[in-house]
Amino acid sequence: MDLTEKTLSSETQFDGKIIHVRRDIVELPNGHQTFREVVDHHGGVCVLALDSQNRALLVRQFRYPYREVLREVPAGKLERGEDPERAALRELHEETGARPGQFQSLGELYPSPGYCGEIIRMYLARDLVFEGAEPDEDELLDVERVPFDALVEQVLSGEIRDAKTIAAVLKTKLLLEL
Amino acid sequence: MDLTEKTLSSETQFDGKIIHVRRDIVELPNGHQTFREVVDHHGGVCVLALDSQNRALLVRQFRYPYREVLREVPAGKLERGEDPERAALRELHEETGARPGQFQSLGELYPSPGYCGEIIRMYLARDLVFEGAEPDEDELLDVERVPFDALVEQVLSGEIRDAKTIAAVLKTKLLLEL
Repeated sequence: MDLTEKTLSSETQFDGKIIHVRRDIVELPNGHQTFREVVDHHGGVCVLALDSQNRALLVRQFRYPYREVLREVPAGKLERGEDPERAALRELHEETGARPGQFQSLGELYPSPGYCGEIIRMYLARDLVFEGAEPDEDELLDVERVPFDALVEQVLSGEIRDAKTIAAVLKTKLLLEL
Repeated sequence: MDLTEKTLSSETQFDGKIIHVRRDIVELPNGHQTFREVVDHHGGVCVLALDSQNRALLVRQFRYPYREVLREVPAGKLERGEDPERAALRELHEETGARPGQFQSLGELYPSPGYCGEIIRMYLARDLVFEGAEPDEDELLDVERVPFDALVEQVLSGEIRDAKTIAAVLKTKLLLEL
């Protein structure tokens, strides 16, 4: 079955610094017309970093949309056209001071494909060397180290709710049989 | 460290049917002011449903923000105030015709907490009985059945990129040791 939807018109609703929002009129494969609300985003990166004692680096930060402090793997936004691997290494270093000897992809994550066009690239970093962290002046966060096994349990219990952290941790658990 | 951000003002940018977008001015714990772009959403539900032969029900549908067909677990939006479990059972039935004898929570997923306030509740359904599926007239999708082991491999290989599908499949794999 052909499932492709054709764009008939597109109207920008909000052109922000982080997100761009549009409302498009589309034609469905059955000939009907409907609308799509779309959030465009340049994309993000995240890194599950494991130290020599197999502890994961997590950042605690206030997430304004939920008005709560979440624990997540280090992450950040891509600038337009920026290389994702380079961005991931930069964010990891800025937030935690870590530079990895080993670095590999954990694949892509589509956070909420019904309305959101963001792609998050996930990475696994090991053989860490630590230099000073350099968080942005207004990027207020705490870094903690959590034994990887305990982190897997926190994901399975539902305590960790951030999608990229769940995906990166459980993929690593199963891929590396850690 | 207190990480709480205080709202100073909030301005609606787009009031859509699916999403509501606002730009808020906030005061950081260090006293600085900055802005937050926020996408509000009533929340979503998804269901990993396994049949008697341990095959997962997946839906293939065109996801307009990415302009590609994705394979995902059945899912849908919450109406304001709707009970998530009831919504999940409804969506599963509408999209696949399945009604489960066993139904349990797999926890919550925060898709992209930097700017998005959506919460997706995840469920696992088993002991399925099938009646006729009743997709919405304009909800065009294909349903397939995939052996659970093969689906786990597709998640680990990066072929499956939808966040809720990755999370529900890998949590189930590790929780049930399937």
